Amino acid sequence: MFDPGCPSRRVLDRVSDKWMLLVIGALEPGKRRFSELRREIGDVSQKMLTQTLRSMERDGLVERTVYAEVPPRVEYELTELGRTLIAAVSPLARWAEEHIEDIAAAHDRHDARKLES
Amino acid sequence: MFDPGCPSRRVLDRVSDKWMLLVIGALEPGKRRFSELRREIGDVSQKMLTQTLRSMERDGLVERTVYAEVPPRVEYELTELGRTLIAAVSPLARWAEEHIEDIAAAHDRHDARKLES
Repeated sequence: MFDPGCPSRRVLDRVSDKWMLLVIGALEPGKRRFSELRREIGDVSQKMLTQTLRSMERDGLVERTVYAEVPPRVEYELTELGRTLIAAVSPLARWAEEHIEDIAAAHDRHDARKLES
Repeated sequence: MFDPGCPSRRVLDRVSDKWMLLVIGALEPGKRRFSELRREIGDVSQKMLTQTLRSMERDGLVERTVYAEVPPRVEYELTELGRTLIAAVSPLARWAEEHIEDIAAAHDRHDARKLES
C-alpha cells in the first residue's frame, strides 16, 4: 500500500477524495441528475463535480444514462461496484460525526498553546 | 453531512485526504521521524508532509515530540484519538486492495468504448 507504484495505492489515491465520498453519499438513495447532485453537495463547483463524475465513470463506479428527451435528461447512478464502496466509506463518515467535539477541543487546546508561546 | 456548513462535513473534508490516510497507515506501528515517514510514504513532498502533519497535530490526531539531543530528534506518533481513525480508514484501504482488478477492467472497457465512438 505504501509503494507509490503499487496499484492499490493508486486506487486508494482516487477513493480518498472528499468529492468522491460526497458523490457516493449523494447517490446512495438512487439516480440523480447533475443539478440535483450539485444542490445536495452544496459547495462543489460545476467543474469539480464534472471531473469527479467523469473519473468515477472511468473507474466503473458511476453509470451515466442519457434519456432521449427534449431537452435530453442525464442521470447518474452508482454501479454495482460503486455500491460496494458505500460500506467501505461509511465508517469514515461515522467517525467524522462521532468525533466533531474531540477535533474542536483539540483546536482550542492547540490555539491556546500557540497564544501562550 | 451534506450541508457544507455542518461541522461533520468539515471534519470529513479533512479526514478524506489521501496524505492523511497514508500518514495514519505509516504511524500505525508506532513513532516515526519525519525522514522515516517520508521514506515510507514514498512520493510525498517535504512541504505536503509538513502541512499534513501540522494539520493532524492541530486536529489532535498526531503528537509531535522534540527530544533535546544534538541534533534535536523530532518524532511523530498517533494520539489516542488518531488511533481511533485506524479502524475507520481500514475498510477503505481494504476496498482499494480488493477491487484493483475491477477498476482496471473498468478502465479497459471505458477506453475501448472511447476508441469505438
